[in-house]
Amino acid sequence: MMTLPPEKPARRGPKPKVGTRDKLIVAGIRALHGGGYAASGIKEILDAASVPKGSFYNHFESKEAFGGEVVDAYFAAGLPEIKRRLGDPSVPPLERLEAYFADRTVAFREGGFMRGCLMGNLSGEVADHSETIRNRLARHFDTWGKVLADCIAEAQASGSITSATPAPLLARFVLDSWEGALLRMRADRSDQPLEDFRTVIFGSVLV
Amino acid sequence: MMTLPPEKPARRGPKPKVGTRDKLIVAGIRALHGGGYAASGIKEILDAASVPKGSFYNHFESKEAFGGEVVDAYFAAGLPEIKRRLGDPSVPPLERLEAYFADRTVAFREGGFMRGCLMGNLSGEVADHSETIRNRLARHFDTWGKVLADCIAEAQASGSITSATPAPLLARFVLDSWEGALLRMRADRSDQPLEDFRTVIFGSVLV
Repeated sequence: MMTLPPEKPARRGPKPKVGTRDKLIVAGIRALHGGGYAASGIKEILDAASVPKGSFYNHFESKEAFGGEVVDAYFAAGLPEIKRRLGDPSVPPLERLEAYFADRTVAFREGGFMRGCLMGNLSGEVADHSETIRNRLARHFDTWGKVLADCIAEAQASGSITSATPAPLLARFVLDSWEGALLRMRADRSDQPLEDFRTVIFGSVLV
Repeated sequence: MMTLPPEKPARRGPKPKVGTRDKLIVAGIRALHGGGYAASGIKEILDAASVPKGSFYNHFESKEAFGGEVVDAYFAAGLPEIKRRLGDPSVPPLERLEAYFADRTVAFREGGFMRGCLMGNLSGEVADHSETIRNRLARHFDTWGKVLADCIAEAQASGSITSATPAPLLARFVLDSWEGALLRMRADRSDQPLEDFRTVIFGSVLV
């Protein structure tokens, strides 16, 4: 399922076993998404991955470098589905957008309105303090926005969206507003922010 | 400037000096807003407030209880200005809204696009893990949204906003989208998300 970046050479120590690095990344996604960056200790991540103590620095130069790779892996895991859904030629483009956010709303409802988006969470917690992580967040948000923009542009071309606002700007706004709705969802522990988002985005913005 | 809640009785130990509690709250706002919740140690906050070690628990039952009071104080410090600006009868209501977000954009530009909103940050980092803090975030966002809703309703009554979407829903959406724009501002370290927000909110939503 998850597309991980290729193995990198170890910084020091013995050649790591195949799979250890991936196990750490998977445990890292779970820890950082569930508890945040500062609250996630390396020891806890090693334990969760059932990886021997001390092997962390065979794979990653620092917690910050690890955090950057976790962000990459999280986004790489989600992007194919976003592309598939928003690029599906068998569904009209505006319906793709509506269905995508409707399904995300259902998923967050099923998950008890927890965790939100790891990229949004780290933008709030870590972006000010780590250029490594901030640069990756900015790049991945940009990529995500471009997939949205392509779908919005298609809807504009077909006339189902008549707004003259440029598709890239609309896409950035939709994405940023979605991230904001996810924050409020967690403060309120309710789907009202997601419903508000869909009402206004599909009633006033993507029209 | 800052409206703080009244002193509470000490949990144990000698009667605290007047002012110590407020100093801790002010240092707590700075620490939590600058670095996040988990990354802010109690020792660091005591040092920043020049308050003797060990006195923290004379004033606060736990870090979590302290965090809740920090959220209250942060919001109480900002609310009067929000109310004054958005309730100013000498300015037409839609212009109040535009000027408010324009000025916030300038302030974030001057601050290097850092820190964002403490309430948004803690919604992302802590809301899932602390009912104490989550309940306060939910309540303060609700209060803030009501001030925005009153101004939007005034603009609707005067005809400068013709959207038939209910003012409370528009207000919640505007607030949540603003919080999302602040997240993206920090990932991008640019004012583009704030400009995107203003373009779409005042071009397509509050119209």
